[in-house]
Amino acid sequence: MALIVQKYGGTSVGNTDRIKNVAARVARTVEQGNKVVVVVSAMSGETDKLIGLAGQISSAPNEREMDMLLSSGERVTSALTAMAVEALGHKAKSFTGRQAGIITDMVHTKAKIEKITGDRMKKALDAGYVVVLAGFQGITAEDDVTTLGRGGSDLSAVAIASAVNADLCEIYTDVDGVYTTDPNIVPEARKLEKISYEEMLELASLGAKVLQTRSVEFAMKYKVPVVVRSSFNDNPGTLVVEEDREMENVVVSGIAYDKNQAKITVVNVPDKPGIAAKLFEAVASANVVVDMIVQNISSDGKFADISFTVPKTDARKALEVSEKIAKELGAERVDKREDISKISVVGVGMRTHSGVASKMFQTLAANNINIAMISTSEIKVSCVIDLKYTELAVRVLHEVFGLDK
Amino acid sequence: MALIVQKYGGTSVGNTDRIKNVAARVARTVEQGNKVVVVVSAMSGETDKLIGLAGQISSAPNEREMDMLLSSGERVTSALTAMAVEALGHKAKSFTGRQAGIITDMVHTKAKIEKITGDRMKKALDAGYVVVLAGFQGITAEDDVTTLGRGGSDLSAVAIASAVNADLCEIYTDVDGVYTTDPNIVPEARKLEKISYEEMLELASLGAKVLQTRSVEFAMKYKVPVVVRSSFNDNPGTLVVEEDREMENVVVSGIAYDKNQAKITVVNVPDKPGIAAKLFEAVASANVVVDMIVQNISSDGKFADISFTVPKTDARKALEVSEKIAKELGAERVDKREDISKISVVGVGMRTHSGVASKMFQTLAANNINIAMISTSEIKVSCVIDLKYTELAVRVLHEVFGLDK
Repeated sequence: MALIVQKYGGTSVGNTDRIKNVAARVARTVEQGNKVVVVVSAMSGETDKLIGLAGQISSAPNEREMDMLLSSGERVTSALTAMAVEALGHKAKSFTGRQAGIITDMVHTKAKIEKITGDRMKKALDAGYVVVLAGFQGITAEDDVTTLGRGGSDLSAVAIASAVNADLCEIYTDVDGVYTTDPNIVPEARKLEKISYEEMLELASLGAKVLQTRSVEFAMKYKVPVVVRSSFNDNPGTLVVEEDREMENVVVSGIAYDKNQAKITVVNVPDKPGIAAKLFEAVASANVVVDMIVQNISSDGKFADISFTVPKTDARKALEVSEKIAKELGAERVDKREDISKISVVGVGMRTHSGVASKMFQTLAANNINIAMISTSEIKVSCVIDLKYTELAVRVLHEVFGLDK
Repeated sequence: MALIVQKYGGTSVGNTDRIKNVAARVARTVEQGNKVVVVVSAMSGETDKLIGLAGQISSAPNEREMDMLLSSGERVTSALTAMAVEALGHKAKSFTGRQAGIITDMVHTKAKIEKITGDRMKKALDAGYVVVLAGFQGITAEDDVTTLGRGGSDLSAVAIASAVNADLCEIYTDVDGVYTTDPNIVPEARKLEKISYEEMLELASLGAKVLQTRSVEFAMKYKVPVVVRSSFNDNPGTLVVEEDREMENVVVSGIAYDKNQAKITVVNVPDKPGIAAKLFEAVASANVVVDMIVQNISSDGKFADISFTVPKTDARKALEVSEKIAKELGAERVDKREDISKISVVGVGMRTHSGVASKMFQTLAANNINIAMISTSEIKVSCVIDLKYTELAVRVLHEVFGLDK
């Protein structure tokens, strides 16, 4: 007998028939002798509908109220799912974030979980109930409802799995698992049986969209074994676990791309100590998260170009801040480019195998794809290229690293 | 400066434009120097939509889950309304039933309020916030969400008004107030300026639908002054308060009708002590609420006919129970009639003025309307008649009691 957390995303609970399917899977899992905690998202489209209503009321709705509003979607699904499980003859009980004891900080609309006092939930599990948790939400110590940000139900699931010491956290979604790259671009892309937390983290944050980044960080920190699989079939999915020997033998495990980046360049800054510090301090205090940074010094050593990438949604804000600082620093101008994308090659095997970066650069060059920026970590190499070459780059890299085999 | 509770029903918050109108009225009330607690229902249609979803999942959904499901509608409206008030430059904060400290018993889907610990709400009012309460809901001592039954937001409003010692509880709806009768039947029907709790109770429970019965009982018990008025105009509405001298001078204040009744008759029961007790014990234990009861003894004193009325929705259940008991009692048969209606003449002046009942009977007889059952209380006389005569009866009674003047 195992204790299993199953998380179902918005499309998996998109209508009552799908909720019944979810209930059937939960019932099967119980009948196989397991205890089950189900974590559900809002029915697909509901959260956007609620955001739309708020937008009709106010251009800058109060964030506490936003959370009160948005948290209702998951409550609906949790109640309906509990009913559906009961209709199949099993005991089930819905839990709000508060009832499950998910205590967060007070940063509304993107709260962080501080602790989980899951006593009531554990009692229900011991009494033979299937626990159905409304994902994406928690409660502050002041008793206000919070939400955990987009994709927050993944985090709810992983955090609850850790809190109740679950044997496995299954993330059900509309894809079969984690692929070597986007199968829409490369039909030969293979589903990975197994991937390390760190690789998953790179793939998630690079835009693979299968699993929310923070939930992967949480799983890694607390060593929660996660499976990503489809709610529409019985395929085994991809296991996300700690790195093992076997994984190290695979040099590259996946190719990710991200079209949602913009590049800001501050041109011809008189080069003095502290210019980068000043610039990025200003950008950070505008709450813009910077991804890659590259600084070039002119041949005479007197001027520097500083380029960095930010999410497209923050590009205007980043440009405004940069222009202000550029003036102070005596820079020539600031450029903004949105027609870029970031291509990344990821794999824990890079730690022990060299030559991945150069192979990547050569392959891109051989296909006449210019590299605008480069950034590397222990387990990935990322290049910024022209947006229009995204698909080509993914295809050729997928092939050259032998991922289709 | 006064403390005012304003309750807005589903049609008054039916879309975001209407919610903005509500916010404008709230803002005006604040700007006139008042503190305001707003109580909101779910947007019209939302509760039925949720009930529909539950019906697709299960024919008998768990009632705890039903409450978790249904309570989400009012949360949405409370958040949107708070946003709308803030957009007009006033501080506002939404409260769930739990956050407002509305503690109920554990009877899911029709819970009773046990107490209100409104400390947090009072603190918010003192700090200058408009409090926006999600109506219709509370929380049990075990921390489970409950709902207060259809029309429960009226009860939330009156109970909160009592808990915070409000000067006035305004119930905003889609009609201008309480009328002498249904203006759709009698165009000359007049809006009442003032009505006593007891009269309102008779009118509400007789089907006038303006105000939920339990909320009127609560208002009467705790002497909460209530105004019923329209959210779509600035007409003054009807004040529901304690009876006063002036009211006693008005013999009849309104004519109500109820087409939602069915009549069950147990025919030719051998008359023995205890037959009625046995019958109505059985009906009560089937959770069917009986309204009127009439028992006739045959001329030889050996047999009795027992007739009673129940809501149409319970008629089948009442018939089944009655048929079982009828067999035990040796009765001839049980009849069920659904083509009936109940007409009631209501007024606190009846206590001090006689002749209302006979005037009613005469008027119905003069119009060839047969009376099937009669029941009276201190302040009303009700007659069951053929359904098809409903409108005629209302019109002639409205005229004969001078209600159009």
